Amino acid sequence: MAYSLSQIAEWVDGVVKGDASHQVTSIASLEKATQSDLAFYSDIKYADLVAQSSAGVIVTSDSLVAKCVGNVIEVAQPHLAYALIAQKMTEQQFSPGIHPSAVIAESADIHSSAHVAANVSIGKRVSIGASAVIGPNCVLDDDVVIGENTHLVASVTVVSKSQLGQRCLVHPGSVIGSDGFGNVRDGQRWVKIPQLGRVMIGNDVEIGACCAIDCGALDDTQIHDGVKLDNHIHVAHNCVIGENTAIAANTGIAGSTKIGANCTIAGMVGIIGHLEIADGTHVSATSTVTKTIRKAGAYTGTIPVQNHDEWRKNVARLKQLDDMARRIKALEKALADKD
Amino acid sequence: MAYSLSQIAEWVDGVVKGDASHQVTSIASLEKATQSDLAFYSDIKYADLVAQSSAGVIVTSDSLVAKCVGNVIEVAQPHLAYALIAQKMTEQQFSPGIHPSAVIAESADIHSSAHVAANVSIGKRVSIGASAVIGPNCVLDDDVVIGENTHLVASVTVVSKSQLGQRCLVHPGSVIGSDGFGNVRDGQRWVKIPQLGRVMIGNDVEIGACCAIDCGALDDTQIHDGVKLDNHIHVAHNCVIGENTAIAANTGIAGSTKIGANCTIAGMVGIIGHLEIADGTHVSATSTVTKTIRKAGAYTGTIPVQNHDEWRKNVARLKQLDDMARRIKALEKALADKD
Amino acid sequence: MAYSLSQIAEWVDGVVKGDASHQVTSIASLEKATQSDLAFYSDIKYADLVAQSSAGVIVTSDSLVAKCVGNVIEVAQPHLAYALIAQKMTEQQFSPGIHPSAVIAESADIHSSAHVAANVSIGKRVSIGASAVIGPNCVLDDDVVIGENTHLVASVTVVSKSQLGQRCLVHPGSVIGSDGFGNVRDGQRWVKIPQLGRVMIGNDVEIGACCAIDCGALDDTQIHDGVKLDNHIHVAHNCVIGENTAIAANTGIAGSTKIGANCTIAGMVGIIGHLEIADGTHVSATSTVTKTIRKAGAYTGTIPVQNHDEWRKNVARLKQLDDMARRIKALEKALADKD
Repeated sequence: MAYSLSQIAEWVDGVVKGDASHQVTSIASLEKATQSDLAFYSDIKYADLVAQSSAGVIVTSDSLVAKCVGNVIEVAQPHLAYALIAQKMTEQQFSPGIHPSAVIAESADIHSSAHVAANVSIGKRVSIGASAVIGPNCVLDDDVVIGENTHLVASVTVVSKSQLGQRCLVHPGSVIGSDGFGNVRDGQRWVKIPQLGRVMIGNDVEIGACCAIDCGALDDTQIHDGVKLDNHIHVAHNCVIGENTAIAANTGIAGSTKIGANCTIAGMVGIIGHLEIADGTHVSATSTVTKTIRKAGAYTGTIPVQNHDEWRKNVARLKQLDDMARRIKALEKALADKD
Repeated sequence: MAYSLSQIAEWVDGVVKGDASHQVTSIASLEKATQSDLAFYSDIKYADLVAQSSAGVIVTSDSLVAKCVGNVIEVAQPHLAYALIAQKMTEQQFSPGIHPSAVIAESADIHSSAHVAANVSIGKRVSIGASAVIGPNCVLDDDVVIGENTHLVASVTVVSKSQLGQRCLVHPGSVIGSDGFGNVRDGQRWVKIPQLGRVMIGNDVEIGACCAIDCGALDDTQIHDGVKLDNHIHVAHNCVIGENTAIAANTGIAGSTKIGANCTIAGMVGIIGHLEIADGTHVSATSTVTKTIRKAGAYTGTIPVQNHDEWRKNVARLKQLDDMARRIKALEKALADKD
Repeated sequence: MAYSLSQIAEWVDGVVKGDASHQVTSIASLEKATQSDLAFYSDIKYADLVAQSSAGVIVTSDSLVAKCVGNVIEVAQPHLAYALIAQKMTEQQFSPGIHPSAVIAESADIHSSAHVAANVSIGKRVSIGASAVIGPNCVLDDDVVIGENTHLVASVTVVSKSQLGQRCLVHPGSVIGSDGFGNVRDGQRWVKIPQLGRVMIGNDVEIGACCAIDCGALDDTQIHDGVKLDNHIHVAHNCVIGENTAIAANTGIAGSTKIGANCTIAGMVGIIGHLEIADGTHVSATSTVTKTIRKAGAYTGTIPVQNHDEWRKNVARLKQLDDMARRIKALEKALADKD
């Protein structure tokens, strides 16, 4: 597909400077773009790349337009405009219908405009909405609900009556509705507590690769509208994640914790169970949250690496920290006594 | 299915107080339960919820029974009794037989009472015991053994001749028997050391979603009876995990480490290779175990998050810790010299 | 298959001491080996095991040969020789051909010597090289390229036009080419930035179980020749991992970070985005890399666990560290003022 610059500018309320009839077919970085590519430019530090770029058009902002040679589409927010343009130009098309190798329970209700790919397994009473895409080798267990335009890329497994809203995107290897980790001791032996809740996922939620979102123990685990999860994220039973919160890869959230709206949680963060985290909280990478956070703000416990030999000396002192603090106090007292 | 309170009380050596002929059909939380639901109550702090609950029956203990209105089943351990009742009331039934879309090697030996779901792949000489359930899109590679009543929920992959005992439960996305990480240098290049051992899993083991349990290098990786693993757990080659040890999500255990029986390892713990951890050890979340632990007890290295600006100042001092300790010592000496 | 000691010695430039015509059929540990097994011995500390071993032959070095009774193959590097011998003796054979249950797009180009197993899904224009093995329930999305002799064990998902070189080995549950985590804010709402790059994987790369390697945002994510990744590793969009770098389980690497060649990154390490790590760098387990590392060496931030009660006292002081440092300085000044 070829798009004229005037057509593209319309999508994002942009203004073409240059040849509005010029057509581009694809998207590339400033370095690699040719006359048939669109590129974008939003940071002054890439001025040299812009000067040398052969892009057919550059999407940029008022303040940077002077750096560009050739065609430009000027927009208020170039990064956002780029995202919207790229969505339009690279939208995947899936033909409606069910691949003959898919195994579908008779009682499943699959919209005629949905796409169900090869080697998919779909259980009883599953409901799949209009224009949904169930990629190859996905499994939808009994009573799962998939909303309109939701896309499971491939090899996604949804169990425990979980429900996904509209326009969600789930990447391969992810598991939605796995049992929560609930056991009670009978002497030394553990007895399993059946996990009877569901996972309820709102609209416009993205879930990365190899995530596991556990179903609730009795009530449901909830992922609200607009949440974005990166890869390898663990969400335990009965967690609630508020609207538009974004969580980076390898983070784990223990049971019943409620994360507010509009939070940003960086990668490999550990969050203890039964906490509440205020709307708008930011947590830095590899930190551990052990207590409820009532006040929005930035929180961290990140320990940066040091040279190994220096660290060895310092880390040994961690075990003496309380002792060191007491000795400082004693010194202060001794010195005061001298006066 | 409806169950009378007298019937339920029998399962757990409980005593009905109220209408023993009342019937319930399902389970709910105190807040959401209706007359047809059973709820449980084991913590004094939920007394207000109990007072307002419409549950058909509440399972509770002697000391809490006075807080309840309506029917009660009194038991010695309400949480344990709840787990056992919920198991009975929510047991899933799977019809025996092999789905026609499953691909089964001729030499596989599948018990006639086992259930093999859609799009499963089963290799040569695989053995599947009575009443085992192999959920949709699972893969069992050559020579795998699955014990009686073991249940692979869906999308589970078992390779390398791994064996699972009876009554195990494995959640989606998990991999059992993946190669251990074994390489030896030939100059700068790595040469792979073939991983020839198996994974041997006992009875009553539960494995969460997206776990990876590596096969042994030569001898076997071992997961003993009653072990419970949460999601995203990595068990490296030749690890041994003792009976009834429970490990929370995102924890990783490096090669040849032996964890004792009845341990509780919290989430996102890193355990170095070739260690031994004593029976009954507890390790806190996001801690790192770098040395053998010979004595049972609680161990931790958790660093709680702080406000970002405060942390920045404090973490910078970590690099000076050894220097600070030396200066305290020098101050003490200088002060002593003054006397 | 039985192999004579003379035959085996030839593979690794070894010298047989003992009966060169003796034959072995398999490999075992020193303790478990019988006359039909080969064992290896490379560390003086196992001298007792060697003395008692019934192995048909022991592969060892010049300096250890005196400890052995029975047949020996003497080699320069016993661990390396063992790896090469084990590779020869345990090589798996896969018959060429496509299983009838596999679903293959018409435009896919699969070499006649390749093996495609049950319940595989292969998209349009996929290319699979000679002697490649695509194990059961794998998914290869449109335009994926798999090189000669590359082996996807089972349940591997490759999307986004990703390319794998020759002799790669990918373990179950791994995902190659999942979308990078790219979003831009439009008010509070996130707008997805389409991820248009690929994952380009070189030759002789091994990828463990349950890894997720994201495709690039515009340019490609790159994994160079000879890289070895353990389980549960997250590689974000546009990362570059240099030749022969080995990374242990549960490590996560954020976007656009470039790791050099011949690095060893231990388990559960977090590496922040947009960094560069010098060739030959070593990072210890559970450390966090927050800044570019320009100089090869060993880096660490590992905090070993302590007894819980001791740690509680010490960790509380972490919040006072800056204050403690200032007070030491004040004490030094006060003492100096006294003189």
